[in-house]
Amino acid sequence: MTQMRTMQPSDDLYPTRNGGEVRMLPRREPVLHGRDAEGPLDAETLARLERDGFWIAENLLSLAEVEALTDALEAWREEPLGDVSDGVIRERGSREQRSLFALHQRDDALGAVMRHPRLVGAARQILGGDVYVHQSRLNLKPAFGGAGFSWHSDFETWHAEDGMPRMRALSASVLLTENHAWNGPLMLIPGSHHHFVTSPAVTPPDHYQASLVEQSIGTPSNDALRALFADAGRIELALGGPGTVIFFECNTMHASTANLSPLPRKNLFVCYNAVDNALVGPFGASRPRPGFLASRDFTPIR
Amino acid sequence: MTQMRTMQPSDDLYPTRNGGEVRMLPRREPVLHGRDAEGPLDAETLARLERDGFWIAENLLSLAEVEALTDALEAWREEPLGDVSDGVIRERGSREQRSLFALHQRDDALGAVMRHPRLVGAARQILGGDVYVHQSRLNLKPAFGGAGFSWHSDFETWHAEDGMPRMRALSASVLLTENHAWNGPLMLIPGSHHHFVTSPAVTPPDHYQASLVEQSIGTPSNDALRALFADAGRIELALGGPGTVIFFECNTMHASTANLSPLPRKNLFVCYNAVDNALVGPFGASRPRPGFLASRDFTPIR
Repeated sequence: MTQMRTMQPSDDLYPTRNGGEVRMLPRREPVLHGRDAEGPLDAETLARLERDGFWIAENLLSLAEVEALTDALEAWREEPLGDVSDGVIRERGSREQRSLFALHQRDDALGAVMRHPRLVGAARQILGGDVYVHQSRLNLKPAFGGAGFSWHSDFETWHAEDGMPRMRALSASVLLTENHAWNGPLMLIPGSHHHFVTSPAVTPPDHYQASLVEQSIGTPSNDALRALFADAGRIELALGGPGTVIFFECNTMHASTANLSPLPRKNLFVCYNAVDNALVGPFGASRPRPGFLASRDFTPIR
Repeated sequence: MTQMRTMQPSDDLYPTRNGGEVRMLPRREPVLHGRDAEGPLDAETLARLERDGFWIAENLLSLAEVEALTDALEAWREEPLGDVSDGVIRERGSREQRSLFALHQRDDALGAVMRHPRLVGAARQILGGDVYVHQSRLNLKPAFGGAGFSWHSDFETWHAEDGMPRMRALSASVLLTENHAWNGPLMLIPGSHHHFVTSPAVTPPDHYQASLVEQSIGTPSNDALRALFADAGRIELALGGPGTVIFFECNTMHASTANLSPLPRKNLFVCYNAVDNALVGPFGASRPRPGFLASRDFTPIR
């Protein structure tokens, strides 16, 4: 895919998946790309995002909006969907749906949430200009054993496997069910987005087919996690009710445990990237991932 | 082991592991066996235990007491200990120590905590008379992936595999490290101890060798968990610092998730049984488990 790459290897600020040693590299760009940009976020919220790498906006969407999303998702889930080529990832044991990708390309109601003024407005304000949706997904984390997610930075994968050049992307996780401390909520290490942890393992072909069930390549070493945790002094759980939105920076280290409870944990994710940070060829994989994981339609959304 | 059984099969109030259907049977005995017994617990604490099946006593042990325990455990852990026949259970993947059993038989400092007046006093008060230690263990839940524990009632196993006739036992879990919401704390379903959930699967020989790594037989059905949860309306996390003690009734349904964090979660468990409730032959297994899991020394402790 070299024809896609417009950058030289020397432009790679975050070399990873190259068989080298684990390293912690400093972040090379700001967290707030549009500090003076207009938008819905106040100075305190922006400062918190810059410091911690995330913030939680309680009840950002109304219950009516959440209900419309849930209805759309239920209708969509009832379609006879197949396998990973359709953007459907299943749990290893139970074969229950674990993640559904590229929702915004399939459904008007789901597409509409990506254009929700409070979501896209926040993304534009933080990323400093026009944005597009790099990825959207629903993580279902079923009751009674929906598996967790290993520690990872989204950016490490998006850089290595998708060709995202810089840290200029933001995820918004819309909670569709209550996220309790006991049904596998998102856990984040505050401040971890200031460091890039390299992952030495070379990316195998079609790695996403395994990594979306359980990721092991592109995850940080235990030593790196210890260092990030020592800086932070804590891990934070992102809890909240339906309609709450967790915004987190593309390089914030996060994970979650399995859901042992009787209540599923359904979160919708919209991952915004700056149009000026559009994908090139992958920096640490032989070919890019499919479009349902990494869109190459860079049309700005408003 | 019929020579051990002094009860008739018709005396089995809690039939389980018998190939039948999943049933929820009512609890047949009180939670507080010594309501008028003297002891360290006040009326409010007793009422809470009766209602919820557990309570959390913050900082019951001093930090000096915790330190003495930790030192004794570290010394003990450095011994070249082997396998399950030594009471050492290892994690499936990493082979790290997961649980160490029968600590009170091996070490004076660990034996002393079992006789701590605030622990044994609470057990005597609740269980209504003389008690002995049915089982003691350390659950280590190592950092970076120490596995969780499936939902279970201790009593279901103690009845089926050890021959404990009635629900007249109490566990005290002494926290040796901080139990955060993010390092795999104990989760409990309040009020679940009022019901006995039968487990139809027949107990295989030497079941404990598998169940102590990951339990699948003797665990409740999803429908039963849903019913217990619907009654409770919530799951509670038992959190606290070193020296905090979680007391929970032998039939309270509990579980915990894996520990993904860099901080191990080390909890010491002392399981008291009433001397008047001493073991007979197992009610749902072909032979009883070894003594390090189920002591048959019923000498009262004071």
